[in-house]
Amino acid sequence: MSQEITRVHTGQTEHLELRFAERASLMRPSEIRALFAVASRPEIVSLAGGMPNLSALPMEMFSDVVQKLVRENGQEALQYGSGQGHPKLREQICDIMALEGIRAHPDDVIVTTGSQQALDLISRIFIDPHDVVLVEAPSYVGALGTFQQYEADVVHVEMDHDGMIPVRLREAISATKALGKNIKFLYLIPNYQNPGGVTLPAERRTEILDICREEKIFVVEDNPYGLLGFNGPSPDAMRAEDSENVIYLGSFSKTIAPGFRVGWALVPQALKEKLVIAAESSILCPSNFAQLAISGYLADQPWREQIAEFCKLYKVRRDAMLESLEKYFPEGATWTHPEGGFYFWVTLPEGIDTKAMMPKAIAAKVAYVPGTAFYADGFGSRSMRLSYCYPTPERIRDGVKALGAVIKSEIESLDKKNKALK
Amino acid sequence: MSQEITRVHTGQTEHLELRFAERASLMRPSEIRALFAVASRPEIVSLAGGMPNLSALPMEMFSDVVQKLVRENGQEALQYGSGQGHPKLREQICDIMALEGIRAHPDDVIVTTGSQQALDLISRIFIDPHDVVLVEAPSYVGALGTFQQYEADVVHVEMDHDGMIPVRLREAISATKALGKNIKFLYLIPNYQNPGGVTLPAERRTEILDICREEKIFVVEDNPYGLLGFNGPSPDAMRAEDSENVIYLGSFSKTIAPGFRVGWALVPQALKEKLVIAAESSILCPSNFAQLAISGYLADQPWREQIAEFCKLYKVRRDAMLESLEKYFPEGATWTHPEGGFYFWVTLPEGIDTKAMMPKAIAAKVAYVPGTAFYADGFGSRSMRLSYCYPTPERIRDGVKALGAVIKSEIESLDKKNKALK
Repeated sequence: MSQEITRVHTGQTEHLELRFAERASLMRPSEIRALFAVASRPEIVSLAGGMPNLSALPMEMFSDVVQKLVRENGQEALQYGSGQGHPKLREQICDIMALEGIRAHPDDVIVTTGSQQALDLISRIFIDPHDVVLVEAPSYVGALGTFQQYEADVVHVEMDHDGMIPVRLREAISATKALGKNIKFLYLIPNYQNPGGVTLPAERRTEILDICREEKIFVVEDNPYGLLGFNGPSPDAMRAEDSENVIYLGSFSKTIAPGFRVGWALVPQALKEKLVIAAESSILCPSNFAQLAISGYLADQPWREQIAEFCKLYKVRRDAMLESLEKYFPEGATWTHPEGGFYFWVTLPEGIDTKAMMPKAIAAKVAYVPGTAFYADGFGSRSMRLSYCYPTPERIRDGVKALGAVIKSEIESLDKKNKALK
Repeated sequence: MSQEITRVHTGQTEHLELRFAERASLMRPSEIRALFAVASRPEIVSLAGGMPNLSALPMEMFSDVVQKLVRENGQEALQYGSGQGHPKLREQICDIMALEGIRAHPDDVIVTTGSQQALDLISRIFIDPHDVVLVEAPSYVGALGTFQQYEADVVHVEMDHDGMIPVRLREAISATKALGKNIKFLYLIPNYQNPGGVTLPAERRTEILDICREEKIFVVEDNPYGLLGFNGPSPDAMRAEDSENVIYLGSFSKTIAPGFRVGWALVPQALKEKLVIAAESSILCPSNFAQLAISGYLADQPWREQIAEFCKLYKVRRDAMLESLEKYFPEGATWTHPEGGFYFWVTLPEGIDTKAMMPKAIAAKVAYVPGTAFYADGFGSRSMRLSYCYPTPERIRDGVKALGAVIKSEIESLDKKNKALK
């Protein structure tokens, strides 16, 4: 019935727009929004999305976990819960973080609706308009969007194949301070970075922590991919080394499943009360059902073996993409070498605009995310993010092959244009 | 292991607090936070909380719903979903809203993590510091907290036993405009109001809608209890009469279960894009699992009969509380007569301070929420909210009896003091 309703815009709601808060002008659709609608068509090989591959998750087992949860503990699972999150799950989260060297107390953990919510709440607590947030260059598109909605000035710090370059961080801090600006925090993804695919070695972690302590800038360490390393464990978390100056964000979205929307923040004591109050104002409490489903899975199922399965699955796909890049991408294109996680970062020869090239890629039935999406300052125009997490290895090969051909033809027409100009 | 960790506050994180945004100073623990910790002790009869009573929910059936969901549709249920919410659930939500006279299109529905998240996002889109939000006097504590975190000036509009008084609304608008202030919206709960327990009759709805259209103030209609009427259906929703100037908020927390955290907003077209962008920045997307669990329940189970069961259960408790109030509360105390929902609003004789009286009530093993929690301006000191939703009728009678005795003794000591002063 609802489908029959015709919606007529009478113009009577224009005063709604006139009443928007100032910050609403910053709520603009991201440039990759329209892209994802196209990329999700079945005939397109999407190397764009960051959806985890759940094909290795034993659904039969998971259905038993949720059935048992409702049967045995339905009154709690279906009821309101604590704003900070369920105590049992917060204990289990501490055990998981111990795998990356973190010693934490469950009282300092706040469960969030995905770690995106933690980013939102931290921004709310810290960012006044025009405050500076330091981030990697490039950085996670979802974090950039949130920082910008809170009217932060985002400053990118250069990376190389080992992640953020400490000396560049020092320079960025000096330059920002010289402008009289207020730096609120450094946001980074040390493991298998999104979108860079690079990992920060242990020495750099220490160096960056030292710089930040010295400058009284705190660190937001976002670590959704840390347990998804292909060659053994990643370096210890930065939070393992500094419990006072690091806000640590974790998530079950990539190690179990994103459909429950369960992530967490581990925070210094000085922040906890504010964070819980902000969380309650935002959603009252995280879902008890989702938390107890994750908790039951962790308690009863071989979750470490399951993560090892995920790693195998992603490594096969990483290999497929790496081989295909070497085989099909033209000279002059370079890429990072991810040792875990979901992404390659590819840089194409000077002159190519990956955003302008997108329609040609879509016509060739392949999608990626243009590099500019991962910069707040317009950089990244000749780069792209390629995800290998979701498609089959065969589809990955087909997609990279098709994309290689598009790039080659783009280079050729660039060369022609350049010759004509001479 | 995590339990052994001692947390030493070294003072090294003081710069964290120095770096809080201005708005963080508004993130203060509410006065009822500490209360709820005490009230949840088993020996206390809590008439304080607003937890729905899930004892009538058939858990066996619900466990089958979630098991089937994972078995048959696990790949979708456990994956990321749409930022706006699942299309199937948005259609079902339109069918539910039709029960209250609303004709809506699923494209205009946004699924949120409880309707609290809708309140948060609407505040984010509309409220600049010192903008005015009009609310009922008293109003929902969770909404007040959110409006205040966005630095709104909250202006209360007087109610009587039929809800908000239209002429008082006109006066509040004039007075606010005379001060040169910017009114952003009117927030109200027309059915079985929280905390007032009153319902706005149809004529007043029309009158308030007319005033708001005329003054170009839009209406946020929060309707979590609308289907929980004890004497047949509540009046049609305000959104049924005005599709252009009303933002409608709904929730499954009281009609199904709050543990999934699924609510929604039905918004005019001019608002939809901003709301989806704000939602994505906040949590990426609502939980597919939670949405599809609700959707499966609505599709396969007799949910209208289940809501009728809830109504019966709450009516028995309402009756128990009403009888006990009449029997045990002293002369001079008055209360509203809820025809649905969860709450009585009780006003005590002049001179009694319900917040100061709380420790005595706790000592007598009964808890309530002091009236000041529901005002942004310090009013409500001789009122209290009593919830009948959760305890058994026997416990309700015990609690009201104990509370009546506390109040009587409070009145007696007030009388003594007054005599001594004469």
